[in-house]
Amino acid sequence: MFARVVIVGVGLIGGSFALGLKAAGAVGTIVGLERSPEALARALELGLIDEACTSPEGALRGADLVLLAAPVAQTGAILQSLLPWLEAQTIVTDAGSTKSDVVAAARAVMKERIDQFVPGHPIAGRESNGPDAAIPDLYRGKKAVLTPLPENPAALVDRVAQAWRLCGAVIHRLSPQEHDRVFAAVSHLPHLLAYALVDDIANKPHADLLFQYAASGFRDFTRIAGSSPEMWRDISLANRDALLGELDAYLAQLTLVRTRLAASDGAGLEAIYANAQRARRAWTDAIEAFEKPSPDPESGK
Amino acid sequence: MFARVVIVGVGLIGGSFALGLKAAGAVGTIVGLERSPEALARALELGLIDEACTSPEGALRGADLVLLAAPVAQTGAILQSLLPWLEAQTIVTDAGSTKSDVVAAARAVMKERIDQFVPGHPIAGRESNGPDAAIPDLYRGKKAVLTPLPENPAALVDRVAQAWRLCGAVIHRLSPQEHDRVFAAVSHLPHLLAYALVDDIANKPHADLLFQYAASGFRDFTRIAGSSPEMWRDISLANRDALLGELDAYLAQLTLVRTRLAASDGAGLEAIYANAQRARRAWTDAIEAFEKPSPDPESGK
Repeated sequence: MFARVVIVGVGLIGGSFALGLKAAGAVGTIVGLERSPEALARALELGLIDEACTSPEGALRGADLVLLAAPVAQTGAILQSLLPWLEAQTIVTDAGSTKSDVVAAARAVMKERIDQFVPGHPIAGRESNGPDAAIPDLYRGKKAVLTPLPENPAALVDRVAQAWRLCGAVIHRLSPQEHDRVFAAVSHLPHLLAYALVDDIANKPHADLLFQYAASGFRDFTRIAGSSPEMWRDISLANRDALLGELDAYLAQLTLVRTRLAASDGAGLEAIYANAQRARRAWTDAIEAFEKPSPDPESGK
Repeated sequence: MFARVVIVGVGLIGGSFALGLKAAGAVGTIVGLERSPEALARALELGLIDEACTSPEGALRGADLVLLAAPVAQTGAILQSLLPWLEAQTIVTDAGSTKSDVVAAARAVMKERIDQFVPGHPIAGRESNGPDAAIPDLYRGKKAVLTPLPENPAALVDRVAQAWRLCGAVIHRLSPQEHDRVFAAVSHLPHLLAYALVDDIANKPHADLLFQYAASGFRDFTRIAGSSPEMWRDISLANRDALLGELDAYLAQLTLVRTRLAASDGAGLEAIYANAQRARRAWTDAIEAFEKPSPDPESGK
């Protein structure tokens, strides 16, 4: 049970966290803290939050838990503004897509109070954004990755895990560096590749003709290129080193594919295609088994 | 109306063409011609075809139209086996994903009878294959691209267009070379990129960890890497030159993205991402407008 939870950024991610806790009957008061009065008014109207604040002073009084659900590049500035009013019992966590940069920003601002900051990343999203996109089931059956710091007391980490579990999420733990290497490969690089392909095609003189014949395979391949350019600029820069490593590995792989194609090496191409098909099938089979209701691996703790 | 239509290859593509013509009440007898007795028996059982043949002699007698719906690499061999029994009034068309190679194979075999061969490519598919995957609506509202040859009399091209239109398709015309350049960009290259990414990840020592955190964006991006490796090996080789051109343009684009990322050039990255998002949105808006029921641009002909 949480008596008072503060959500910084009442959009899809923060709003769905609020609704998930409310649906579980696990929260007294939810406070929305955000610069945009329009978003706050809409969040109140939709019942995502019970109180609206545009400054941290009143918002943080008596809070158990603060969730940062704003763009990762703002983490340092937001923590700076919260710090003077942050009480000793309050836990701060976040929902950012990158973790090493968030931890660095948090350490720089919070210094000896870094023990109060438990970094996290729920692996969930929708095509739409803003308070109206928030739903109580966004995190149900999804992973919430926590990347705890050596300074975090176990009780604080467990408390954050409990909040995500109340929203229906399954808790995973990685180090911030492991997290960033993993997501560079399976999320950040695919976004970069999809954006690059659509931009490449859009810049060709016969782009209209090309788009006219693009079909469902192209639509799925490029769906992630419909994501927010500002958000993905920030993620790319925040996770630059890991992303460069994955991009270089992929460029080497494409160069190999090019060599085989140029040599009309059918067996060599088929080996790559067949290995990919096999690996993807094993993965989707595993995902489908995982997405069936099953016990949370940490729920026995 | 078609009195006798021969389908070479009674899988998803050929079987759905048969069901579409039957649903339109536009065909007398459909003959399945194929090497696999199991596929033929299943196609008969499912009602895709009325007669089953494993050799062309009886199949072609009195045929109006023959559709080749087998792997493109087999086009020459299939035409060679049909030619001795091909009557003067019979039109042959195909459903292959590449056109320049199909035309070259057809010219080599058919020689002065090339006027009877009208190349085509319906832009439709499903995740599953074989006779059981065939459905009457597969082509409804989808594009059927014809790539007629200078030798084809207009009446023969119109007759093939009529067959696809009876299946619900909208007729487009390109030259074989235009067709191959267009599909290299919007279909063949994305397949190659998706296969390359999944293979790259699957070969990393920590592949299991990576796949564990891959989510819905990765699933959509790599869906086409679930396609048949043999089919895509053949398409890659058949359209090698155009595909190499698109791959080289994409490698140059990725090198530009890499340079901007390495320089932490946020504005430069955002320009690429934003242009891609804008272009993709314009395209999906146009596609959604197109997919609403609307008159066939050639139906007035």
